[in-house]
Amino acid sequence: MKTLFLIGIGAGDPEHITVQAINALNRVSVLFVLDKGHVTEDLVRLRLQICERYIRKPNYRVVQACDPVRDSAKASYTQGVEDWHEQRAEVFTRLIDDELADGESGAFLLWGEPGLYDSTLRILERVRANGCSDFDYHVIPGISSVQALAARHRIPLNGIGQPIRITTGRRLVAEDLDNVVVMLDAHCAFQAFVQENVDIYWGAYLGTEDEILISGKLADVCDRIKLTREGARSRKGWIMDTYLLRRRIDTSH
Amino acid sequence: MKTLFLIGIGAGDPEHITVQAINALNRVSVLFVLDKGHVTEDLVRLRLQICERYIRKPNYRVVQACDPVRDSAKASYTQGVEDWHEQRAEVFTRLIDDELADGESGAFLLWGEPGLYDSTLRILERVRANGCSDFDYHVIPGISSVQALAARHRIPLNGIGQPIRITTGRRLVAEDLDNVVVMLDAHCAFQAFVQENVDIYWGAYLGTEDEILISGKLADVCDRIKLTREGARSRKGWIMDTYLLRRRIDTSH
Ligand SMILES: C[S@@+](CC[C@H](N)C(=O)[O-])C[C@H]1O[C@@H](n2cnc3c(N)ncnc32)[C@H](O)[C@@H]1O
Ligand SMILES: C[S@@+](CC[C@H](N)C(=O)[O-])C[C@H]1O[C@@H](n2cnc3c(N)ncnc32)[C@H](O)[C@@H]1O
Repeated sequence: MKTLFLIGIGAGDPEHITVQAINALNRVSVLFVLDKGHVTEDLVRLRLQICERYIRKPNYRVVQACDPVRDSAKASYTQGVEDWHEQRAEVFTRLIDDELADGESGAFLLWGEPGLYDSTLRILERVRANGCSDFDYHVIPGISSVQALAARHRIPLNGIGQPIRITTGRRLVAEDLDNVVVMLDAHCAFQAFVQENVDIYWGAYLGTEDEILISGKLADVCDRIKLTREGARSRKGWIMDTYLLRRRIDTSH
Repeated sequence: MKTLFLIGIGAGDPEHITVQAINALNRVSVLFVLDKGHVTEDLVRLRLQICERYIRKPNYRVVQACDPVRDSAKASYTQGVEDWHEQRAEVFTRLIDDELADGESGAFLLWGEPGLYDSTLRILERVRANGCSDFDYHVIPGISSVQALAARHRIPLNGIGQPIRITTGRRLVAEDLDNVVVMLDAHCAFQAFVQENVDIYWGAYLGTEDEILISGKLADVCDRIKLTREGARSRKGWIMDTYLLRRRIDTSH
């Protein structure tokens, strides 16, 4: 039997890590660091820094592997995701089979919170369903970019007693605007709603040295966010940003 | 100038605490621990344990204060909340004025994630708006009960590329059932939906020694959850539970 830990490492700040995560890092013999190509080099570096900073025991192996990237040219989004997950399951199977001896344990260092728009859990379920390797696994929560965003803007995620929605750029719709957090948005989906009476709280590279925060009435800051985002993205080669939209409550009457 | 830290301490497991939170705890001179009466004695104890376990510097003061409880008999929910927040603002103003000298810093230890159904941020904004004390403040994110729930059930919070809703028992509606996390539910709001083809992942006292997890098709486990919840609540005197409901995807065709 092999044991895997899916460890949330926070969304950019190495101090987001929890004591539970540090203890798990110090218990495993292999650290799996998956690389999605050159744009995520910085993200791989943060993972390696976390290992160096927090692992106190001398003998551990870091195994870097190439994580297949989704073929976005695929006709159907769902089929594209399906094929991609299957490819990833093969990579994971190989890692578990080849890099972990029986009785050994390994960890995947996951960005932010493992339960939030991260497919590792699903991939592992698929690996198990394929019946290849015999392993057990544990999930260790981590600070998500949503929480980093709220903390840095010092805002609550919800209105008093109100629901919260978290969604993707692709799925953002007008009905969400009362209170919604948007992730995975490569196309500034907020611009479609610039006429609406909403505030935006935007953050990029949260928790890192490059962190950028912009907030205000959407109509006032929409262009500034777009320009800032484009400039940062071309300078660094990649960007990760998240934002909260919240309808203004009219207090004039 | 005084400085306040709103520190998320996780939702029950003392190892949920982040390095950032530990560092902040070690920087402040006063720890504020607010008590809401006998039912939350256990929760106060966890906060004190966290101070003892993680604060390495010798000189700090713990200030316990009584946090006003909302008068739920108030005719309007909103007015009830409004009065309650004003009372709490008075308590906070007094704490900041009386317990912190100029230049000193203090911390509030907040359950779970400070941005999630916690009114401390709003109270502090109100204290500032009232123009009483002169202070700055910082927010330090913490592992929420939502994350603890997902980690312990080893489930993702979202369907692939799908939105997530987080809501309260009071506000849970049928439209949410595709994928929703419910908090603050004293009345088992899920029972209204027992006919629906949904799975439930339920957790109580997550992260603590008393943790209880139940999951399955709602129709199958609904009664078991109600009985378990009632039994635990009367045994311990209080309960905190959270659950995720997710519509089953019919894979038979
Ligand atoms: C594949 S999802 C993973 C989310 C991650 N599991 C989490 O909990 O934050 C990647 C998305 O998260 C958001 N994100 C992650 N880290 C971020 C950061 N440091 N600053 C801003 N947004 C971030 C962006 O919206 C990005 O498109
Ligand atoms: C006032 S809210 C505070 C939430 C907190 N800020 C968080 O991030 O979890 C209290 C609600 O959180 C949920 N909760 C908090 N701690 C929990 C735990 N250890 N187990 C289960 N539910 C919990 C329950 O739904 C409870 O009614």
